[in-house]
Amino acid sequence: MRRYLALEGGDGSGKTTVVSALASRLSERGDQVVVVREPGGTDLGEKVRSILLDSNHVDRWAEVFLFAAQRSQLARDVVLPALELGAWVISDRSYYSSIAYQGRARGLGEAKVREINEIGLEGVEPDHVFVLEVDPGTALGRQKRPDRIGAESVEFQQEVHNAYAELAREEPQRVILLRGDDDVDTLVERILEVIDVD
Amino acid sequence: MRRYLALEGGDGSGKTTVVSALASRLSERGDQVVVVREPGGTDLGEKVRSILLDSNHVDRWAEVFLFAAQRSQLARDVVLPALELGAWVISDRSYYSSIAYQGRARGLGEAKVREINEIGLEGVEPDHVFVLEVDPGTALGRQKRPDRIGAESVEFQQEVHNAYAELAREEPQRVILLRGDDDVDTLVERILEVIDVD
Repeated sequence: MRRYLALEGGDGSGKTTVVSALASRLSERGDQVVVVREPGGTDLGEKVRSILLDSNHVDRWAEVFLFAAQRSQLARDVVLPALELGAWVISDRSYYSSIAYQGRARGLGEAKVREINEIGLEGVEPDHVFVLEVDPGTALGRQKRPDRIGAESVEFQQEVHNAYAELAREEPQRVILLRGDDDVDTLVERILEVIDVD
Repeated sequence: MRRYLALEGGDGSGKTTVVSALASRLSERGDQVVVVREPGGTDLGEKVRSILLDSNHVDRWAEVFLFAAQRSQLARDVVLPALELGAWVISDRSYYSSIAYQGRARGLGEAKVREINEIGLEGVEPDHVFVLEVDPGTALGRQKRPDRIGAESVEFQQEVHNAYAELAREEPQRVILLRGDDDVDTLVERILEVIDVD
């Protein structure tokens, strides 16, 4: 059974590197792998991405809805068909980012943000969400060109960090915290162990 | 007390003409009037409008979220400040369009679509929603260049029509049906009567 895996973490936590290493490792086994990123991954999603990251001012709820819009499109146009064809789907971010960033760090309410997204996803949700935990101060320093959201304060990034930790306590089967300071090979081994792949 | 008024109706029902005549009439009294349209009305909203109307394929929930996104931005950036300054706000469409089009005609569920929008609006909702009722077949014929949604079938437009009729029964104080075949002056007089303006 192939599954839908998401990598999460603060900006600069190294998610993209892990996504790519994990995809290579699964491909080497001969498995089909589809890599996606949020926001983006579809024509509509890339247009929404540029509104989200490049606008001067995005209303707090408009931000939630724009993320949810690109995510619904991606779920039905790319993720679900790939899973049905037997591929792994590895996503750089998922709706857990919205719960952590908009729900918690912007203070809009984790339950409301979760509900909105789950309505749109109609069940196309990640089986496992791996969170790369990195000290928020360290992670901020790693970003070369932070976008509108990556440029938020260290306090904001700390709230994101706290939100992921709480989600992992609430849903231990789905949300798994990883030490972002570990090297990539160690992180990939740990993920393979969780998804039960040799 | 100035109020937030929305004009609703199927595509080709003549909303835009009535919005403009009503705005002129209130301006002639010396009142401040702000006219907006959905989707649109802000920089972000116009970008979202072009995604909504010009894309080849918009996922069903992505459509709901994109409408909700531009509406939240408009509510807080334009509508609320205008009301606070004592202006009338007259809107060409509102979240009642989403309830009728996406909730009912696309079958996503009126309650879910209403809830999503009301979360984002945080109370900035129209005081009165005037619906121009026109036979769906006639209205379709009036459209010169239908967009992606205006190009839907007559059955779809009939469902939109039914949805508005039901909303008017459920919320008679807020949702008022008007005969779209009446001339503009008659329609404006009827609206002024409802909002209690001589």
